Amino acid sequence: MKMAALCSEFGDLAQIKKQLISVISLCKERGLLHSAKWASELAFSLDPLPKDDLPPTPPFTEEDAQDLDALTLAKSYFDLKEYDRAAYFLKGCCSQKAYFLYMYSRYLSGEKKKDDETVDSLGPLEKGQVRNEALRELRVELSKKHTARELDGFTLYLYGVVLRKLDLLKEAVEVFVEAIQALPLHWGAWLELSNLITNIEMLKSLSLPDCWIKDFFMAHMYTELQMIKEALQKYQNLIEAGFSKSTYIISQIAVAYHNIRDIDQALALFNELREHDPYRIDNMDTFSNLLYVKSMKPELSYLAHNLVEIDKYRVETCCVIGKQ
Amino acid sequence: MKMAALCSEFGDLAQIKKQLISVISLCKERGLLHSAKWASELAFSLDPLPKDDLPPTPPFTEEDAQDLDALTLAKSYFDLKEYDRAAYFLKGCCSQKAYFLYMYSRYLSGEKKKDDETVDSLGPLEKGQVRNEALRELRVELSKKHTARELDGFTLYLYGVVLRKLDLLKEAVEVFVEAIQALPLHWGAWLELSNLITNIEMLKSLSLPDCWIKDFFMAHMYTELQMIKEALQKYQNLIEAGFSKSTYIISQIAVAYHNIRDIDQALALFNELREHDPYRIDNMDTFSNLLYVKSMKPELSYLAHNLVEIDKYRVETCCVIGKQ
Repeated sequence: MKMAALCSEFGDLAQIKKQLISVISLCKERGLLHSAKWASELAFSLDPLPKDDLPPTPPFTEEDAQDLDALTLAKSYFDLKEYDRAAYFLKGCCSQKAYFLYMYSRYLSGEKKKDDETVDSLGPLEKGQVRNEALRELRVELSKKHTARELDGFTLYLYGVVLRKLDLLKEAVEVFVEAIQALPLHWGAWLELSNLITNIEMLKSLSLPDCWIKDFFMAHMYTELQMIKEALQKYQNLIEAGFSKSTYIISQIAVAYHNIRDIDQALALFNELREHDPYRIDNMDTFSNLLYVKSMKPELSYLAHNLVEIDKYRVETCCVIGKQ
Repeated sequence: MKMAALCSEFGDLAQIKKQLISVISLCKERGLLHSAKWASELAFSLDPLPKDDLPPTPPFTEEDAQDLDALTLAKSYFDLKEYDRAAYFLKGCCSQKAYFLYMYSRYLSGEKKKDDETVDSLGPLEKGQVRNEALRELRVELSKKHTARELDGFTLYLYGVVLRKLDLLKEAVEVFVEAIQALPLHWGAWLELSNLITNIEMLKSLSLPDCWIKDFFMAHMYTELQMIKEALQKYQNLIEAGFSKSTYIISQIAVAYHNIRDIDQALALFNELREHDPYRIDNMDTFSNLLYVKSMKPELSYLAHNLVEIDKYRVETCCVIGKQ
């Protein structure tokens, strides 16, 4: 809630950077690694803050102090993927942070078991039949807390994920919007929402907070809905607003150009991207598409070789190898 | 160095708990998850500290502030196992923490690639031939810094690991001892050292700091060297000194009894352990040995079923299943 209040259309960039630094630690404490990565990449693209301008560590409440030992232990187990053990030690904690990690551990435990089952199952046909067994219970518990208005931004996000996985898409959209209103800086919630929006009318009907991050979301949505002109305009605005060094934005624009088959523009941007972030694997499958279309065989083979060197088992790497 | 100064044979337990809480965050910031887990379990077994008694966050130096953005970004990549990318963004940082994470990322990148190669190789015979390709370079660079006395406790530890992996065992022992002297609270360094000690004379010849954690190490060493009487005495002292609730100590005593075939004592302790830590998988292979020897088939089958529920792919689980 505090963060929502801080949000306004392009306040100064230092303020945005502070918000990002704060949300990065909130996400990391909760094991939300992809949202932390997104925010870290964006923060890195902005000028460094002077030492005395760094955001203060958030207040440590009486509840946090009470949960400290259990939370520290549980997070150690969580980081080593011992999710059941983490959940066991978090049961009975009282802080919001511990509650999130308790529920998230149970969710991830279910996901891990589902993946193990899938590995064991005979073929791809069976895949859809294996389900995260924790989902139903999590839904019941989160739904009660939701009705009692006891969920914070992170647990609302988790509730949305649970609903989405149970194919309750309409409810999921509503809950993700709530999650975003409670904590606009958490990119994962926006991204989940984006996957559920099927057309522009639906997008327009949502009541989203007026925060600078909404522009990132709208640009992403326009790209997803193939409204490339609008997407490029949004990204241009973001670049002019001070995000010109963001590798995220450069890659998004490159993908947008790819989608309208403006191959030369897209290629130029991907080449720029690889200069600043040579070990990047994200979006390299799209880059390889362009090289393939242009029949740039040596470049394609160099890219494939390079990605195999970095991580041969990433999905993107396999895609690129397949195109050679 | 600061920590070494704080260490003394069984100071008060609150002081020990503070030291543990501090070292847990140092380890977590550096991705040393197993050492963080060990310290978290031990801290959890001690009484909670009053809120105002919690250790202050360590001082944030000018160097830390300079590296903050790169370090935050790199740690996000590191947490998602993008080690090459993490190392790329850490190159040129100046703080000790960033330097450790830079070298550790390169080490883990090499380990990951080695594992990938091993998966691809034809059979177990080839396994020994695949090597972490980063080791030689890391050794050269760390050796220079070592000579210049520029390594802190964590980088000394990493240097020791690199030497050990290159089969330079004598040098590795010396460097692990240095690492322990610089940062006695880092359990990982003690554990690495313990694997290189082959007899009691060698153990006695080492110059180890007089810190309470040394007793944990000595007890562990006595168990490893089959000096079970001495080990049990050490653990008894630790229990009397206030560590009676430590699941680590209970499991170590159980393993010690197992090693001298005092099966009933060992069984009783394992049952106690499972009461306090029902989702524990560590040491359950030893527990299953005992159940097997006593022909306790229903208990063995219950344990196996239980571990499969928690994590069917852990080595310990496979061991237990094999005994049924």
